[in-house]
Amino acid sequence: MKLNIALLAGDGIGPEVIDQAVKVCDAVAKKYDHNIIWKPALTGAAAIDAVGEPYPDETHEICANADAVLFGAIGHPRFDNDPSAKVRPEQGLLKMRQKLGLFANVRPTFTFPSLIDKSPLKKDRIEGTDLIILRELTGGIYFGERGRKDDGNTAFDTMTYQRFEIERLAKKGFEFAMKRSKKLCCVDKANVLESSRLWRETVQAMEKDYPEVEVSYEFIDAVAMRLIQWPKGYDVIITANLFGDILTDEASVIAGSMGLMPSSSVGSKVSLYEPIHGSYPQAAGKDIANPLATVLSAVMLFEDMNMTEEAEEIRRVVNKSLAEGYVTEDLADGGKSYKTSEVGDWLANNI
Amino acid sequence: MKLNIALLAGDGIGPEVIDQAVKVCDAVAKKYDHNIIWKPALTGAAAIDAVGEPYPDETHEICANADAVLFGAIGHPRFDNDPSAKVRPEQGLLKMRQKLGLFANVRPTFTFPSLIDKSPLKKDRIEGTDLIILRELTGGIYFGERGRKDDGNTAFDTMTYQRFEIERLAKKGFEFAMKRSKKLCCVDKANVLESSRLWRETVQAMEKDYPEVEVSYEFIDAVAMRLIQWPKGYDVIITANLFGDILTDEASVIAGSMGLMPSSSVGSKVSLYEPIHGSYPQAAGKDIANPLATVLSAVMLFEDMNMTEEAEEIRRVVNKSLAEGYVTEDLADGGKSYKTSEVGDWLANNI
Ligand SMILES: CC(C)[C@H](C(=O)O)[C@@H](O)C(=O)O
Ligand SMILES: CC(C)[C@H](C(=O)O)[C@@H](O)C(=O)O
Repeated sequence: MKLNIALLAGDGIGPEVIDQAVKVCDAVAKKYDHNIIWKPALTGAAAIDAVGEPYPDETHEICANADAVLFGAIGHPRFDNDPSAKVRPEQGLLKMRQKLGLFANVRPTFTFPSLIDKSPLKKDRIEGTDLIILRELTGGIYFGERGRKDDGNTAFDTMTYQRFEIERLAKKGFEFAMKRSKKLCCVDKANVLESSRLWRETVQAMEKDYPEVEVSYEFIDAVAMRLIQWPKGYDVIITANLFGDILTDEASVIAGSMGLMPSSSVGSKVSLYEPIHGSYPQAAGKDIANPLATVLSAVMLFEDMNMTEEAEEIRRVVNKSLAEGYVTEDLADGGKSYKTSEVGDWLANNI
Repeated sequence: MKLNIALLAGDGIGPEVIDQAVKVCDAVAKKYDHNIIWKPALTGAAAIDAVGEPYPDETHEICANADAVLFGAIGHPRFDNDPSAKVRPEQGLLKMRQKLGLFANVRPTFTFPSLIDKSPLKKDRIEGTDLIILRELTGGIYFGERGRKDDGNTAFDTMTYQRFEIERLAKKGFEFAMKRSKKLCCVDKANVLESSRLWRETVQAMEKDYPEVEVSYEFIDAVAMRLIQWPKGYDVIITANLFGDILTDEASVIAGSMGLMPSSSVGSKVSLYEPIHGSYPQAAGKDIANPLATVLSAVMLFEDMNMTEEAEEIRRVVNKSLAEGYVTEDLADGGKSYKTSEVGDWLANNI
């Protein structure tokens, strides 16, 4: 099979972790006789520096015409300390989501037996956790009207949802639930927000099409609590953009290490795969960042392409590296650790 | 001293826990020679049943003219299963906050040495946690314009903030910080929301008035994560209504038991004190609910009245009851437990 994959390394540790994922994908491609054509493109602060724009048109063209996008991370401290900067790396992220129509951010949360003690949560609370949060990614308060009034003394943002946006995301949620434990939880704030009431109404109307799925409706504040108290209580969660932003980051605590958690952002034409961690500028260029989240994002990519064996093969070597302690320093507990590039080589060589 | 306290027992376990707080307050009043005049008033589902309104005008009059309000809980399952109900208990809560101008919800989070093992979090992560979340309570997306368009297929809510609303809350935050570890964290989503940028701008402009306070600015998604990973990293947090709703509930997980966490909602004229737990309908009428969160809310009331000794005295008996295991079943770990009313009597008798 021939695969065109847009490669957006981005900022900070992005390029380093992306490099390892490329090695691993190439090794899999070789083994299963595929041909991956990588199409590197600029994004984030790197793109601002080069062409003054965090998501240039050339990059969009490359992504829109690819079979999939593999993404590293964006963000640079230079912009964090300058809230007045007109062009910011994050804008590229939002523009990319919108222009590529990446409406569903899929974030699995699971634990690794060998790493369970790294979690701030007690083992019996989290062991066996296996949930997916589906965050709506191209609507809500991220893309509604916003501005100032009264000489700048009043600011407003609008959370807007249209029925089709909710349906599209909820459909994905029901489909995931059907393939899993058939439990779907819609998280909202319907006791206060009109947009949440539209969510509830829309999802309720869809229930009849999935009679096997048990649907529950919970408030975001309660879920922020329960997700930590008893994550095993959840299977598939669907929620709005802002609520998903908060819950997915919160859920990452369960696994104990951000360095392991992958994600995908699904569009109607093309989908994007990225680690959930950020650009981690303090580690950039040091060859110490953990590449596994990016490698596991490539697993999600192969799964979505129905290349199940290829996905399984990568998962197998990742588990092997964890079991044998061939890991970066964040997972080494003070023991022997390996460089980012060494872990990448090891994974590729073991395929 | 003479104190007029409006007493809003509300729904579910509200009346039971309120009864115990009254016993304890009366015992303290007797010991220190104060005169507390309790003014009971209807609220929540109880008020809907009686007069068709969750926060009747008579109740508002009583609250507005009191020195303080002691509040139980509101909410009834009858309304949860009927999203179309026109009058809902929660509306009473929002109306009360707005009409009484309760602009700052103060939620301390701390651990009790004797209960630390009840937390889903590991002991070393949470031991010594002592933080306060200040949630803005009368603005933001809770009170902005909302509605439907396009034949009901589009719904919107508006998050609006005015500079004075942010200043008023931030001032409380700086004042708390000055009395504590002098660390203030402003939590927002300034990389996306205009209202958050106004928060940041406003708080930044106030920094010069409190040169001793170290101020940090963090994004809500990151804090949802860090609050669980390392709660000891925070001292005073200030945040908008919706973000505070989520973070305060999330933070309650740290202590391991909602049954212990008090809160106050500060207004310019009168303030309200309430346990953070809800009406817990399953336990209503069974005399099993834990009254300590309500009793500790009364401690906050006395502190705000500068009745420090009285507050200390209640805190002392609460700690004594925990140390001696004179507790309700939720804290008894399968051992001997006592009824709600027995715990209340015990506390009052030990004052
Ligand atoms: C950088 C920021 C705009 C972004 C978001 O809020 O969506 C990030 O937090 C994420 O979750 O990808
Ligand atoms: C009942 C609900 C409207 C309320 C809120 O969101 O403020 C509650 O969650 C709270 O925190 O007091």
